[in-house]
Amino acid sequence: MTTTVRPEALAALDAADPLAAFRDRFHLPRDVVYLVGNSLGALPEAARARVAEVVDREWGDGLVGSWNTAGWFDKPRDVGELLAPLIGAAPGQVLVCDTTSLNLYKALFAALALRPGREVVVAEAHAFPTDLYMIEGALGTREGHRTRLIGRDAPDLASALNEDVAVVVLSHVDYRTGALTDLAEATRQARAHGALVIWDLCHSVGALPVDLDAAGADFAVGCTYKYLNGGPGSPAFVYVARRHQEAARQPLSGWHGHRAPFEFAVGYEPAAGIDRFRTSTPQVLSYAPLEASLGMWREVDLGQVRAKSLALTGLFMDLVESRLGAAGVEVVTPRDERRGSHVALRHEHSYGIVRALADRGVLGDFRAPDTMRFGFAPLYLRHLDVWNAVAAMEEAVATRAWERPEYANRPTVT
Amino acid sequence: MTTTVRPEALAALDAADPLAAFRDRFHLPRDVVYLVGNSLGALPEAARARVAEVVDREWGDGLVGSWNTAGWFDKPRDVGELLAPLIGAAPGQVLVCDTTSLNLYKALFAALALRPGREVVVAEAHAFPTDLYMIEGALGTREGHRTRLIGRDAPDLASALNEDVAVVVLSHVDYRTGALTDLAEATRQARAHGALVIWDLCHSVGALPVDLDAAGADFAVGCTYKYLNGGPGSPAFVYVARRHQEAARQPLSGWHGHRAPFEFAVGYEPAAGIDRFRTSTPQVLSYAPLEASLGMWREVDLGQVRAKSLALTGLFMDLVESRLGAAGVEVVTPRDERRGSHVALRHEHSYGIVRALADRGVLGDFRAPDTMRFGFAPLYLRHLDVWNAVAAMEEAVATRAWERPEYANRPTVT
Repeated sequence: MTTTVRPEALAALDAADPLAAFRDRFHLPRDVVYLVGNSLGALPEAARARVAEVVDREWGDGLVGSWNTAGWFDKPRDVGELLAPLIGAAPGQVLVCDTTSLNLYKALFAALALRPGREVVVAEAHAFPTDLYMIEGALGTREGHRTRLIGRDAPDLASALNEDVAVVVLSHVDYRTGALTDLAEATRQARAHGALVIWDLCHSVGALPVDLDAAGADFAVGCTYKYLNGGPGSPAFVYVARRHQEAARQPLSGWHGHRAPFEFAVGYEPAAGIDRFRTSTPQVLSYAPLEASLGMWREVDLGQVRAKSLALTGLFMDLVESRLGAAGVEVVTPRDERRGSHVALRHEHSYGIVRALADRGVLGDFRAPDTMRFGFAPLYLRHLDVWNAVAAMEEAVATRAWERPEYANRPTVT
Repeated sequence: MTTTVRPEALAALDAADPLAAFRDRFHLPRDVVYLVGNSLGALPEAARARVAEVVDREWGDGLVGSWNTAGWFDKPRDVGELLAPLIGAAPGQVLVCDTTSLNLYKALFAALALRPGREVVVAEAHAFPTDLYMIEGALGTREGHRTRLIGRDAPDLASALNEDVAVVVLSHVDYRTGALTDLAEATRQARAHGALVIWDLCHSVGALPVDLDAAGADFAVGCTYKYLNGGPGSPAFVYVARRHQEAARQPLSGWHGHRAPFEFAVGYEPAAGIDRFRTSTPQVLSYAPLEASLGMWREVDLGQVRAKSLALTGLFMDLVESRLGAAGVEVVTPRDERRGSHVALRHEHSYGIVRALADRGVLGDFRAPDTMRFGFAPLYLRHLDVWNAVAAMEEAVATRAWERPEYANRPTVT
């Protein structure tokens, strides 16, 4: 049982870890246990050189010619192909561009156009809010459509579905609880009612194997700055199943999505294939760290990532329950395998605990009103880190650290 | 007369140039005369250190905490305030975020909502096409609106305006010809008919003084990677006059535009002021060079920029007409002061000439079918560069360089 876990045994697990060598390919500050990789991934060492190459050689020396010679123009497509294997997508179905919110907006219009006569968009009341806000913004420009929220208007997906539903927007992994939805099964359910699904993969890509093609998925979006380590604000991705591309239309129809952008024609004609989901000039510099990181990801076995993720999150939950359960720390994340790679805990004084942990070098995050989240990025975390994090939490809780005045005030941004 | 211009006199002008010292603050490859700064500005030397700071210190060491401690979350607003003086905007009216295309989309919806019952969007048939494509995409999601194109459906702005017009989208400087529209006068004309104007400042910001507040402007958008040297794909800007902000709504309503993004509420409530034009996570790394460049721009006198721009473009047109006019090179750009900082020339063999110039170290660009464009960024170009560029063109034309087989095939992307 986990109460008898010894650090020596964990060190042995770390020594035998087939992913152990990846840790050295990240920059991690000394004496920090970084458990917020589910929000912003750590810096891959290879990113520095790639960024310098883009700035010094491609921009500084290559100047405007680099749009061709350095492949800047094709970044969304080319980096999309680098990412595609991580989400089980055959070539020609993924772009890396814009943000998750914008890509969701595009996918939503495309999906609605594919389901004329259906008026309902199903989403989750517990979705990351930007998904809901983008749906609201999009539907505000259209007559006759309405949302139906799982967790508010209907108890679950099955009861939300009927023949009025055009599109379902689902999170693969819940950003708060870490709960994992069965992607293939939910896709099958929605499609059985004739609805299309847009998957939000923000909290699953790079944390576990995702197989969109095999699931018969329609659309997916997600970000690249969490487990994929693309850096702050690195561009997001959009997946459109090949069978939907020819009929797909989206309103953010900038010149990079045009069939022939350099003809400078007055009228918009969408490019063939996935390129019609491009909008405009890619933020070239923000692709650079992601390119470096995705190069490294080509060496990664996602099965090993998933196994280690389950091991780390499982160990963390076991230790928290056995050592902190009596002190009122509650595990929110599912204990079975229906979870992603972060763990949510609840405690009356979560804010103070997270602050106290930070002062002990253990970084997690706080979500109002009473939740702590800890992400376990399998490429750079060790079993011993889990041990140390729980030990620090025990110490913080035992000393009632939240009573210290410096942990009393919540910042407006957390 | 310009036919008697001597290089010694130009060297004297360069020596007396009050902006001369800025040239050393850019990286310019040796033996290159870079006349494409109207497309992608050169690399400011200060950008390298700022980029390294963001990667190494803010991301690498600061990790997710940098959203607060390094001010990442507020980049759109803070960098917007750095840019605001360059477009004559008092504080609280400018964001730097997303792309020009996306910001135009947002501004268009906001403007349409402010003019209910009016059905027409006036735009220019000769606008940079992405503006037209985004208008087309936006109106495709709305019933009842239609476009009226100056240069196709109406000969000029005056005849395009009537009481049906909700919004007018105008380019301050024409991306092809370099022609400058009188911003204050066109704004007055449109407003006399009750229409709102969205200005596209892509080809004027950093090239000449722009004074949006003084002109009573409504909305403006533009990019930062041309004369402002923000780097490839650096984020764009949007200006919304303060008087319109409270009533303004836009559909790209991501969480960063929410009144309280960290409340994670189910429903969207727009932030007060300009922040409601934010969408989602800013591409932090792509702001870094722009921040460095805008720091430098605070030292720049835009009146000096305009004077030097007119001097360089005027000298170039004089020399081209006197030395190449007889060979069939035609100046397209207005000879009076109604021009921006780039010059368009026309010649049957423009493509071959541009290629031949590149091989002589003079970089310009080609726009089908027969136009050459040359941009004159006043911060890093000299009068002698103009002389050398024209000398190279004379040589290319005299030797009929376009007859060389290596200059025959046009690339698909130019």
